[in-house]
Amino acid sequence: MTGIGPQSGKVFFVGAGPGDPELLTMKAHALLRWAGIVLHDDLVPASILSLAGPHAMIVNVGKRCGAKKITQAEIHRLLIASARRGMNVVRLKSGDPGIFGRLAEEIDSLEAAGIPAEVVPGVTAGVAAAASLGVSLTDRRTSSRVVIVSGHHGDESAAEVDPDWARLAGEDASLLIYMPGKDYARLARELLAAGFSADLPCLAVSKVSTPEQSDLRTTLGEFQTAAPLESPTVLLVGRVFARALKQRNWNSLIEIARLTVSQANWKELPERRIES
Amino acid sequence: MTGIGPQSGKVFFVGAGPGDPELLTMKAHALLRWAGIVLHDDLVPASILSLAGPHAMIVNVGKRCGAKKITQAEIHRLLIASARRGMNVVRLKSGDPGIFGRLAEEIDSLEAAGIPAEVVPGVTAGVAAAASLGVSLTDRRTSSRVVIVSGHHGDESAAEVDPDWARLAGEDASLLIYMPGKDYARLARELLAAGFSADLPCLAVSKVSTPEQSDLRTTLGEFQTAAPLESPTVLLVGRVFARALKQRNWNSLIEIARLTVSQANWKELPERRIES
Repeated sequence: MTGIGPQSGKVFFVGAGPGDPELLTMKAHALLRWAGIVLHDDLVPASILSLAGPHAMIVNVGKRCGAKKITQAEIHRLLIASARRGMNVVRLKSGDPGIFGRLAEEIDSLEAAGIPAEVVPGVTAGVAAAASLGVSLTDRRTSSRVVIVSGHHGDESAAEVDPDWARLAGEDASLLIYMPGKDYARLARELLAAGFSADLPCLAVSKVSTPEQSDLRTTLGEFQTAAPLESPTVLLVGRVFARALKQRNWNSLIEIARLTVSQANWKELPERRIES
Repeated sequence: MTGIGPQSGKVFFVGAGPGDPELLTMKAHALLRWAGIVLHDDLVPASILSLAGPHAMIVNVGKRCGAKKITQAEIHRLLIASARRGMNVVRLKSGDPGIFGRLAEEIDSLEAAGIPAEVVPGVTAGVAAAASLGVSLTDRRTSSRVVIVSGHHGDESAAEVDPDWARLAGEDASLLIYMPGKDYARLARELLAAGFSADLPCLAVSKVSTPEQSDLRTTLGEFQTAAPLESPTVLLVGRVFARALKQRNWNSLIEIARLTVSQANWKELPERRIES
């Protein structure tokens, strides 16, 4: 890590990975422990925030669950003010900071203020989702590229238009759709109208890499009528995911086994065992 | 991590990240220390391999620099044999294992042999390259998607065809081209013929995140006549990278400063300082 002068802080934009603290990079972990102030988004779980040092200030600058409705300009001011006080600033973003994380705007504001910044990449959610299903995103036989795209856009970015799905249609790509929203029917209709096949495997993975991870494994045609999973969710669309479709029933059995174990209330079992 | 029975091993496909050991995930680091055998590709640097335990077997199964010319079928047999001996097997792949890593074929072979596998995602090289330049891959103003594609294909995968560049052309994407090869002139010609603009920022980043990282910052038009960088290299093409083009001269100055510092031979300086 680059040395930092005592008088002015540097801002580290750090990828927190998909959710599992074990999927933080070594560097992200070290920076979290070093930070005097951690400014984080809504999606970073408590299990990761708890890795910060005991005296660190932890500030939720997320736009949904944060203490108050914070604007992007206010986040910029907070970053600049913290750095100017000489604090060790970590701007923690879920996944990789450069993928749908408003990184460009925040870096621009720091550059304008003359404050140095460094970006620490992270494991992005779609890549982690595929890994959790044991699926390779590229495959010499079926997929020659990976496309990461945002499914729909929040109200504050109304200037953006929906993706040009027709351009993205193609049997030889693995499509990772971030923020697919809750309206699966509409999204599926758009994709089908753009030329995607109804039998194309389509998987929704919710809360990737956390203990609450769940998924929906279907085809694009059947996806239209599926009940939406809890946010955050990433959608995986493409032929390579056929492997995960085959495993669907097997995983349902594991799910049932997990429920049975949790119902048994393990906390009480060890003592009983010692007595017997 | 899932518990593993004593009689049969499980194979962990682990992403080693782009090169910097600090960009390993916590989980990758823990698995490396735990492994009885590490089967790795050519691109994983010694600084990462040295993190394995003192008694671990380290086997280079890379197809270029490995001790002997190893085939994909031989790698499969080695994975299966190691797991059947009850060894703790880590199959270490540079970047993310699911992105151009032959993961699908290796998982298929394990599945056929009835051996469990788990995939641990990693930071992929293109994402790390953008981070190292301080560039956000998506930007509400210029880039709505990220496309990861392989530039050209080795001799052993002759069945594959070159990417359909015309489909990928578009001003609103960040294109990450892995394995661009050394023939920059040919690649640039193909992209220009497919409709990419000559003034589109085009950056080659070599040995991402290692102390030897270097880059070439230009436009697609000028890229044709550029001298190729050392492998491995990733190519970044898109409007978002204009930010890094502007910093070109500034970074050249830093490079000059670095050279000056290294020429001063710092090893001798501390003693002199103490004496004065």
